[in-house]
Amino acid sequence: MEINFKNRDIISITDFCKEEILYLCKQAKEMHDLEKNNERDGLSNELKNKALAYMFYEPSTRTKTSFITAMRQLGGSWDGFSGIEGTSVMKKETIRDTVMMMEANHFDVIVMRHPLGGSLQWAADVALIPVINGGDGENEHPTQSLLDIFTLYLLSDENLDGISIGFGGDLSHGRTIRSLSLALSCFKDITIRWAAEDFLGMPEDLVELMKSREVGVIREKSVEDVISNVQFYYMTRPQLERMEGITQKDVMEMMKKYRIDLNKVKESNVKLMHPLPVNSEIAEIDYEVYFDGSQAFFQQAENGIFLRKALLHEMLKGVESVQFSGKLNHLLEYGNNRLKRIIKENVKEKRRFIDNITNGTVVDHLLPGTEQEIVAELDLMDRGSSAIPAHLPKSGKSFLKTDLRELNERELKKITLISPEATINYIKDGKVADKFVYLLCKNINCVTRVVNEDIPPKFYDDTGTIRCRYCRKSYSITSEKVSQKEKEEFINLLPEGIEQIKFHA
Amino acid sequence: MEINFKNRDIISITDFCKEEILYLCKQAKEMHDLEKNNERDGLSNELKNKALAYMFYEPSTRTKTSFITAMRQLGGSWDGFSGIEGTSVMKKETIRDTVMMMEANHFDVIVMRHPLGGSLQWAADVALIPVINGGDGENEHPTQSLLDIFTLYLLSDENLDGISIGFGGDLSHGRTIRSLSLALSCFKDITIRWAAEDFLGMPEDLVELMKSREVGVIREKSVEDVISNVQFYYMTRPQLERMEGITQKDVMEMMKKYRIDLNKVKESNVKLMHPLPVNSEIAEIDYEVYFDGSQAFFQQAENGIFLRKALLHEMLKGVESVQFSGKLNHLLEYGNNRLKRIIKENVKEKRRFIDNITNGTVVDHLLPGTEQEIVAELDLMDRGSSAIPAHLPKSGKSFLKTDLRELNERELKKITLISPEATINYIKDGKVADKFVYLLCKNINCVTRVVNEDIPPKFYDDTGTIRCRYCRKSYSITSEKVSQKEKEEFINLLPEGIEQIKFHA
Amino acid sequence: MEINFKNRDIISITDFCKEEILYLCKQAKEMHDLEKNNERDGLSNELKNKALAYMFYEPSTRTKTSFITAMRQLGGSWDGFSGIEGTSVMKKETIRDTVMMMEANHFDVIVMRHPLGGSLQWAADVALIPVINGGDGENEHPTQSLLDIFTLYLLSDENLDGISIGFGGDLSHGRTIRSLSLALSCFKDITIRWAAEDFLGMPEDLVELMKSREVGVIREKSVEDVISNVQFYYMTRPQLERMEGITQKDVMEMMKKYRIDLNKVKESNVKLMHPLPVNSEIAEIDYEVYFDGSQAFFQQAENGIFLRKALLHEMLKGVESVQFSGKLNHLLEYGNNRLKRIIKENVKEKRRFIDNITNGTVVDHLLPGTEQEIVAELDLMDRGSSAIPAHLPKSGKSFLKTDLRELNERELKKITLISPEATINYIKDGKVADKFVYLLCKNINCVTRVVNEDIPPKFYDDTGTIRCRYCRKSYSITSEKVSQKEKEEFINLLPEGIEQIKFHA
Repeated sequence: MEINFKNRDIISITDFCKEEILYLCKQAKEMHDLEKNNERDGLSNELKNKALAYMFYEPSTRTKTSFITAMRQLGGSWDGFSGIEGTSVMKKETIRDTVMMMEANHFDVIVMRHPLGGSLQWAADVALIPVINGGDGENEHPTQSLLDIFTLYLLSDENLDGISIGFGGDLSHGRTIRSLSLALSCFKDITIRWAAEDFLGMPEDLVELMKSREVGVIREKSVEDVISNVQFYYMTRPQLERMEGITQKDVMEMMKKYRIDLNKVKESNVKLMHPLPVNSEIAEIDYEVYFDGSQAFFQQAENGIFLRKALLHEMLKGVESVQFSGKLNHLLEYGNNRLKRIIKENVKEKRRFIDNITNGTVVDHLLPGTEQEIVAELDLMDRGSSAIPAHLPKSGKSFLKTDLRELNERELKKITLISPEATINYIKDGKVADKFVYLLCKNINCVTRVVNEDIPPKFYDDTGTIRCRYCRKSYSITSEKVSQKEKEEFINLLPEGIEQIKFHA
Repeated sequence: MEINFKNRDIISITDFCKEEILYLCKQAKEMHDLEKNNERDGLSNELKNKALAYMFYEPSTRTKTSFITAMRQLGGSWDGFSGIEGTSVMKKETIRDTVMMMEANHFDVIVMRHPLGGSLQWAADVALIPVINGGDGENEHPTQSLLDIFTLYLLSDENLDGISIGFGGDLSHGRTIRSLSLALSCFKDITIRWAAEDFLGMPEDLVELMKSREVGVIREKSVEDVISNVQFYYMTRPQLERMEGITQKDVMEMMKKYRIDLNKVKESNVKLMHPLPVNSEIAEIDYEVYFDGSQAFFQQAENGIFLRKALLHEMLKGVESVQFSGKLNHLLEYGNNRLKRIIKENVKEKRRFIDNITNGTVVDHLLPGTEQEIVAELDLMDRGSSAIPAHLPKSGKSFLKTDLRELNERELKKITLISPEATINYIKDGKVADKFVYLLCKNINCVTRVVNEDIPPKFYDDTGTIRCRYCRKSYSITSEKVSQKEKEEFINLLPEGIEQIKFHA
Repeated sequence: MEINFKNRDIISITDFCKEEILYLCKQAKEMHDLEKNNERDGLSNELKNKALAYMFYEPSTRTKTSFITAMRQLGGSWDGFSGIEGTSVMKKETIRDTVMMMEANHFDVIVMRHPLGGSLQWAADVALIPVINGGDGENEHPTQSLLDIFTLYLLSDENLDGISIGFGGDLSHGRTIRSLSLALSCFKDITIRWAAEDFLGMPEDLVELMKSREVGVIREKSVEDVISNVQFYYMTRPQLERMEGITQKDVMEMMKKYRIDLNKVKESNVKLMHPLPVNSEIAEIDYEVYFDGSQAFFQQAENGIFLRKALLHEMLKGVESVQFSGKLNHLLEYGNNRLKRIIKENVKEKRRFIDNITNGTVVDHLLPGTEQEIVAELDLMDRGSSAIPAHLPKSGKSFLKTDLRELNERELKKITLISPEATINYIKDGKVADKFVYLLCKNINCVTRVVNEDIPPKFYDDTGTIRCRYCRKSYSITSEKVSQKEKEEFINLLPEGIEQIKFHA
């Protein structure tokens, strides 16, 4: 198998296979050894004239500094923005345009963080230069997962098979536990032991997935039980901001059980890992633990440098500069693989739908009362068309008619956002020529749902599961009122896998 | 003609003559060719040890990144600030002191953006190192104009004579249209076609100026009419923030006519230009246009790199470092060419003015009721003088007397800001020795009107038009109640052209 | 005497002896001469591959830019943060963890600014790489003092003995006057003349200290009297934000006497110094003075570059990279030199204290009514112990008992913050085995008082004065109710001087 990271986008931990993970660990170990052998400057000209752009829509010191350090030690340069205050983003510039602007500045790689899931895959689609995901909302932060794996690799004599790891605290919110578990599942004889309150436990689908990949998952009664049975304990802080209905005080009270103090670790050989930062107010980790041999989280932070240095080196060393094209046509090559639920059996529609319209569109099954809003949003008038919203009080049905033949992408998206079950009927020569539902990713934090961004929804078939190309959340077609036959046809509609993304895990 | 940009300030597009513009285009084309021939790093040591300071009083990503990229590719370094949060500016540091502070840090060039017109000319006057205007309020942004011109140059086979360009949207606000028109007027057989709502049309004085410079200016009925008759269409977004009395909704509704969609461009050969960023909320440009061959705005962004790279290279390559003097005496060399309307005929003044004063000052023609405020503002008492404000109820006249012989610059400015028609009478040996009105730039966004900045107002004669040296707005002496004779004498008072600025356009 | 700055922390001006100050001045003079001889780039590879981290918890342009310029001219690189908006600090990360994070990024030196006194000594304790104090609250800013001294050195023909300097304005707030005085006191025949309002005068303890070090200190009646009798006049702006009970307007009115205008300086040979920025609103310095030969504050700003260049060069040139350990154990080597007032004579305590407790702790002498708050704060329950707060209404005494044997550092600190006179009694086998008061620095702006930071209070004996190791404020034991014998024992408890800090001044 050929391993090649040159100009490759780094979007999700699931894009890496076992061999690639191990290869990166080996390269990172070389970076580690250079440092430990007092040869820090050994590669200080490797990326001369290469430049990294950082685009942090949410500010960050840790991730940004780590990438910049990697670039600095390889002799490259960097520039970018951190926080959107005062940037063009405030002036409603799209991700697409901002990425193009940065690419026009002849950077060789982009590291980006953005609050919305899927934004990074979109940025990668737009840019011809490689893009690294520095965190897209709750979704992914793959270099964090890679550095976690690399830390385990270093602390396990470079052999990840057979390790046992503990999780405690809040396992249901946040991306770290999921990504780390997915990465670990590439290896053999992995055991995960965890302890958490019922509502903060490991998500059931993740447990199932792990089991299907032959990872042992064992729930313990307490943190103490976990720690005394594992080699590594990976801490996770409560994501207070994502918990509804309980007060911060309650959570903090409850989390005390999961707080790490010297008593919990002193008689074990466990190594404590933490993605950092530690919240000192919650006091997740007692200060005495900082002086204990079990503390491994600062090495973990340094390992991030080695890992990112290895990654950037693999991606950019000896690679010819990508020329900025100023064009976006490559986006069209990905094809129009959007999801439509085509409703074939009803092509012969009742007369009332096509009253007055020989050629045009009827939008049916609107949420009652949304028809006026849709007309207003669509600017149908601007396109020189008439639009007749209608509400039938008796049946409670809302629909609208227009003499416009085809709705464009933005119009279809607007209709679906307002009225998710809306059915589009294209009328030709007085007959329903096409009838479908336009389907949009249902993850409300998915970047494709932001109308102004104009991102066409795209999906792919991940061994039976339909996923959004961008936020990678699964799209459950069972939630639609569709027959089994429809479902099969539906999956058949999905495009072939898109070449430049691989989905291994 | 010798063309020399070494250590030259870049303040206004009008500082460049045709030969200079063409020379920069040629140099930028070389930068462009290096990139397109995969020789991006060809000049990567040219500005080794040169450093650029960025001083962005208003934050910017686009302009800052572009200059930094240029510097990076030439092997130089950079540092500075973007946004004034947390800087000394918040502690009421003057532009003068901040510029001196940056100059003390041994930078070789300053790029600065500031919200007030004229601030950049002032910064250039203060600094011995060259200063580039990155935008001074509504006034100028010369490297934007130069990159626009360079884009036209590239797209017109390096021949700017004879081109036709369209403008649409909001042509009366913002600096882009004016600056680009002025630059284009250096070339032959230029045609401008425009379409806009009446109140957003090309300013009449600009149309007149263009015509006097033999540029064809034609108003069309619609954007479609413009686009089908020009080679280039330069888009301008509505400057909502600068329109009074109409709602944002109204403007957006109205601007729909000027929105560019595929229908408008698909049957033309027009190239679309835009200074960016595009406001996605207003949807100035339909997303389908991004994929069309007419889209040239991203190349335009890249051209900004080439142009700035060429400019910095010309300014700094092989130039000896300017030593920081720590002194400001060079400012005195520009002379005291402030504007005073001297009123000679009334030198023998009525007795009442000089009652009680043998030597001192009488300030007359105050706006009624302002005399107390002026006394308070002047701190005359601090200077050990008496000050007697007076208001004659019968005549409605306000004036004040002080035994202080001469008012200093700050005092004259304060008086004039409060009471624009105030007349200063210096009394000597019981007689009026001098009588004048101190004239200040009337542009309320001009930096010279900020008292704390202590910038002496200066003016120059631009072939018959008197202009503020800083914001370059014209000063209409006809608005003063002055005779023709006075007017001539007034112009005679103006200083000779100041060497280090050239006004070609 | 060997002078060695390699990897040395720069925390306080008092850490430098006369020889070291003169050595740095000499080195800075060489940097100055390079510049003035047009050899700016003479050292542009000296710190190749060395990197500076800036950690500005309070934003700064001036200090940050100056350090970066120094690093740039020596060929090094830099990265960091300025302002905590959007950093991990907002997520309650401790100084300790943030410093460790930056150190993990393989920087060679840290420059840090923080609002709390002592934070920089703490950062220096945590980091194995050297730390430079860029300002810790009202405490110290040693490179400012050094550049002031260097400016005096340059302007005095490289001989600091015998100089006379004036201070005016606000001499009681701010750190500049104190630090500069302390540095000057290393030299011979120094005279300080000052003029200020009574409540803004030189602090008495500083005057006493200066006199004990044979510095002449003379109060004058006016700024004019000061200026006409000194070679240098060092301006200090009113620290309005630190004055209570008087309005800004009052202060500004009052400060007019101290405003420098041309009249005050024109007949003197004084050189005007100012740490900058000048507040233009207050108009501390009249603009005409900027053009006068007496103005030396811009040279002073440039001298900051030379001084910092020299300092960084001394600290880092030829020094092997410090390896990041990921551990904090070196902090334990400093020993547990916290201050406890041990109360020996009462070891046999009344029965009621140890009722019910054979082994445990009794906390006595609580502020009445604080016992419940202390129990809540301590989380004693979490540690599996019982805690019985008690209030004896008759005697008004509050105390609490717990069966927990020893309180940890954080618990002792929390008790003392709530109830400063609390006495801790450790009970063993039914007897009081140990009884003491835990003493904490009394400076409310000292970083050691922030519980979350977990900084152990430490003190040292500065020739008879007990000082906090961190904020260096003196700890007056006379304010405690202790006998002379106790006091002596108390001082005996202090640890030996800690090797890596020297206290010369």
